[in-house]
Amino acid sequence: MEQRLSLVTLGVASVPAARRFYEALGWTASSASQGDDVAFFQLNGMALALFGREALMADMGLTADAGVPEAKPRFSGVTLAQNLRSPEAVDDLFAQAVAAGARALKQPETVFWGGYSGYFADPDGHVWEVAHNPFFPLDQHGNLTLPA
Amino acid sequence: MEQRLSLVTLGVASVPAARRFYEALGWTASSASQGDDVAFFQLNGMALALFGREALMADMGLTADAGVPEAKPRFSGVTLAQNLRSPEAVDDLFAQAVAAGARALKQPETVFWGGYSGYFADPDGHVWEVAHNPFFPLDQHGNLTLPA
Repeated sequence: MEQRLSLVTLGVASVPAARRFYEALGWTASSASQGDDVAFFQLNGMALALFGREALMADMGLTADAGVPEAKPRFSGVTLAQNLRSPEAVDDLFAQAVAAGARALKQPETVFWGGYSGYFADPDGHVWEVAHNPFFPLDQHGNLTLPA
Repeated sequence: MEQRLSLVTLGVASVPAARRFYEALGWTASSASQGDDVAFFQLNGMALALFGREALMADMGLTADAGVPEAKPRFSGVTLAQNLRSPEAVDDLFAQAVAAGARALKQPETVFWGGYSGYFADPDGHVWEVAHNPFFPLDQHGNLTLPA
């Protein structure tokens, strides 16, 4: 696993309200943001995302009937993501993480937004997403750039 | 507030155990790491820190008698940090955040590790540290580099 981070996602009660807070601090949301559903901010070689907390939990399979009830109360409302250059690289890293002691939350799969993504929890329950997102380019250093 | 992130800190049950997990993924800890107390990993222009969850809560003033009991159950175990170039810049950004609707958790002050730091929570309770750390240099783009 390369030593880099692509996205920090904050699970929030209201995306528009959370977005207004960061805009009040002087930040400008990316055009990759989608209405009231998700907001992205370009940071240094990575991005911060604001996403509904319930939607984020559903995205990682932490619904009430997901069979991992013990994970739900531990979900911090924050996910860390490392994006990779292919679905195969996602599968490889996901397997490496599980072999290292991570708990699989959602096996990598093709997802609604057009990418390929899985989630695992580290031994303290901190959630990582491993994703291939063809819409968010990575440069030669692995830094992420949101669409202009 | 500039659109950049300096550190993501994960509050963990055991720093050595958490460090072993990330090392098992192929990562190498920085020499800035300190025994069983804290581990740092250089990422792309920023760093990931592993710090004891209780110590992290104490660092931000979230002890049982800190007068902000409502914050304790909401603490996610993750803090985001933006480092700045002077204590004065920390004070300025902290005031700007509170004016924008953040909740002050700990007013900026000189701290034991030789820097100057304060914590605030965004409207969803996600915790940000604003810090001046003379030991972690920032380049002209604001990217953070751990000591070699």
